[in-house]
Amino acid sequence: MDNFVFCNPTRILFGKGQISELSAQVPKNLRAMLVYGGGSIKANGVYDQVIRALAGRELIEFSGIEANPLFETCMAAVEKVKRERIGYLLAAGGGSVFDACKFIAAAVCYEGKDPWDICVQKLPLTAALPWGGVLTLPATASEMNSGSVITRQSTQQKLFFFDPLVFPQFSILDPETTYSLPPRQTANGVIDTFIHTTERYLTFSNDSFVVDRMAEGILATLIELGPKALRWPRNYAVRANLMWAATLGHNGILDPGMPQDWASHMIGHELTALYGVDHAQSLAVVLPGLLRHQRKRKQKKLLQYGERIWKICRGTAVRRVESAICKTEEFFRSLGVGTTFADYGIPAEDCGRIAERAVRHQGMLGEHKDLGVKEVTEVLRLCVGGERKGRSRR
Amino acid sequence: MDNFVFCNPTRILFGKGQISELSAQVPKNLRAMLVYGGGSIKANGVYDQVIRALAGRELIEFSGIEANPLFETCMAAVEKVKRERIGYLLAAGGGSVFDACKFIAAAVCYEGKDPWDICVQKLPLTAALPWGGVLTLPATASEMNSGSVITRQSTQQKLFFFDPLVFPQFSILDPETTYSLPPRQTANGVIDTFIHTTERYLTFSNDSFVVDRMAEGILATLIELGPKALRWPRNYAVRANLMWAATLGHNGILDPGMPQDWASHMIGHELTALYGVDHAQSLAVVLPGLLRHQRKRKQKKLLQYGERIWKICRGTAVRRVESAICKTEEFFRSLGVGTTFADYGIPAEDCGRIAERAVRHQGMLGEHKDLGVKEVTEVLRLCVGGERKGRSRR
Repeated sequence: MDNFVFCNPTRILFGKGQISELSAQVPKNLRAMLVYGGGSIKANGVYDQVIRALAGRELIEFSGIEANPLFETCMAAVEKVKRERIGYLLAAGGGSVFDACKFIAAAVCYEGKDPWDICVQKLPLTAALPWGGVLTLPATASEMNSGSVITRQSTQQKLFFFDPLVFPQFSILDPETTYSLPPRQTANGVIDTFIHTTERYLTFSNDSFVVDRMAEGILATLIELGPKALRWPRNYAVRANLMWAATLGHNGILDPGMPQDWASHMIGHELTALYGVDHAQSLAVVLPGLLRHQRKRKQKKLLQYGERIWKICRGTAVRRVESAICKTEEFFRSLGVGTTFADYGIPAEDCGRIAERAVRHQGMLGEHKDLGVKEVTEVLRLCVGGERKGRSRR
Repeated sequence: MDNFVFCNPTRILFGKGQISELSAQVPKNLRAMLVYGGGSIKANGVYDQVIRALAGRELIEFSGIEANPLFETCMAAVEKVKRERIGYLLAAGGGSVFDACKFIAAAVCYEGKDPWDICVQKLPLTAALPWGGVLTLPATASEMNSGSVITRQSTQQKLFFFDPLVFPQFSILDPETTYSLPPRQTANGVIDTFIHTTERYLTFSNDSFVVDRMAEGILATLIELGPKALRWPRNYAVRANLMWAATLGHNGILDPGMPQDWASHMIGHELTALYGVDHAQSLAVVLPGLLRHQRKRKQKKLLQYGERIWKICRGTAVRRVESAICKTEEFFRSLGVGTTFADYGIPAEDCGRIAERAVRHQGMLGEHKDLGVKEVTEVLRLCVGGERKGRSRR
């Protein structure tokens, strides 16, 4: 169990009607800017609830944050913040809006030449604008962490940064705001949370037994409740547990003493940048191939995962590992999410190109930091699909 | 799943050698007072490590905090803080020292007439001295929460308070500092954590499914590792996981959406105040009797507990519940901790007197707040012991 530092100062206000608490959370002495995406918060009533909660306060607005927030859009927001002398950001939406607010908060105070360097150089920030948010799409846990992923359109780069200065001061999570999510976004949120969890859990055993158990608790919850959310989208208990599970999946509570993989995310970012597949879809494609490629080095944890989560206790280690991976794929597909290149029309011959970009942008990948272009190409070849029978013989 | 607010600002520095980070955590511009108990931190080397980490800084000392910290002792510390113009407290020891520091931090800034009212009236604090600590005994999670339990010798009262202003700013947890714990304290820490967890988990189902899973993860960890810590006290992985599990058991992560019982703690406090039994011993005595008394109202959760933790899946509900309670008692006894009045020489005829005190000090008890003197007396009669055969027939 490696040494660790844990510190997460974000205040969570969770449950029905909590948006009405906004006025006590947003400082009265700072000019605030409401940041949101397309129009979903207007359609689902969140916009109205926010305006009502902050009635009588001046609120500047900035809309148009994309599903994968663009550097270019964030920089337009930075201009508006400076022009309007904004002192506080209020996010309303999903992880993309929260990620964008982190970048805007950092870029406004950035003293270097090019704010894109926040993502490229990843140097510690010296200041950031304070901010908080109202979450409407559980998935990224951006509402309770200090990380952000930003895409630069002009270079097709999708890069992350994190810094303690960009933790939200508060996040409001009302499960009722998720009732109107389209099934695709509900499924994506479940898968994103699942893979945030496996990025720590499916690595090598590092004696972090109690954190393993936490991770297993989140995976079991997702498997139990994910299909129920698709079937009964207005079931409060189901939505509430998935919403809190998404926060727990990536708010740091699964980090203590654990190795971290993140190859699925880093490779997946390239699939999103190049082919426009949803973030969670890209993860559902990469994870099974990665697990198969790394099945020997991850064997101990894959066997534990198979036994504790899928009750796979019999057969050779090789077969149990493959069964666990197949069960994972089946779970993703049961949510309506494809798990192969073929499902999204990604050309099989692009494996090398995608791998080359992933390693160029992120360096050597995986929990051992030793997956280069060759290995990532091999991983991607296992993600191509269209030969399922052959695969299950492995 | 009830609405909740979650906010825990304490910074945790966990692992071997982390005490050397002290100098970056304790503000240089404030005069600090080191608060500790008897001499265990001198015997186990923690005192020396603290002094070394803060070499060159002036450090006032206050020692003599009891295992159940006394109001009277804390008030002597408050006098010293004022006399010496102390601006920062540094705890070094177990939960008792941490609890004492919270009370001292609050009492120094208290503007009312009698600081004991902090525990009696439980009004929100307006200010408290900042503080941090080095933990040496995992059990109470006082290192990462805002609660404190203080005993007033003159009235034999043991009362709690909590307030966000008394969260430690930081806590250092080095599992190696626990190698030298006597078996009794190791066992007590495991049981204290176990019952912090069941105070939430073994209540009624409130649809907080993911938090249930977290709780089960902690219970499973304690059952797996508790006996190992007694057998191999210098096994780092075992000690590290138990130390972090203790923090997770009562740092708020098990609260979201969950009902809270706390009857075992409230009744147990009276056993400690009256008969001097260790805090964890008192819990090990009360919990089984409470579960038996409340077995119908807690049945759904007791069945889930039996199935997921003890793999009890067969038989009538009544038998499965009793089996789960028996397994729990066996686990406590396997750690060398007695589970009945008889084990500690507590007179069976005192049940009514103990119940009367518990309800007078804490009000109606349990997650339904409806256990009065009559019910608590009945609970305590089930804790008397010396008739095990009769009991297991129930």
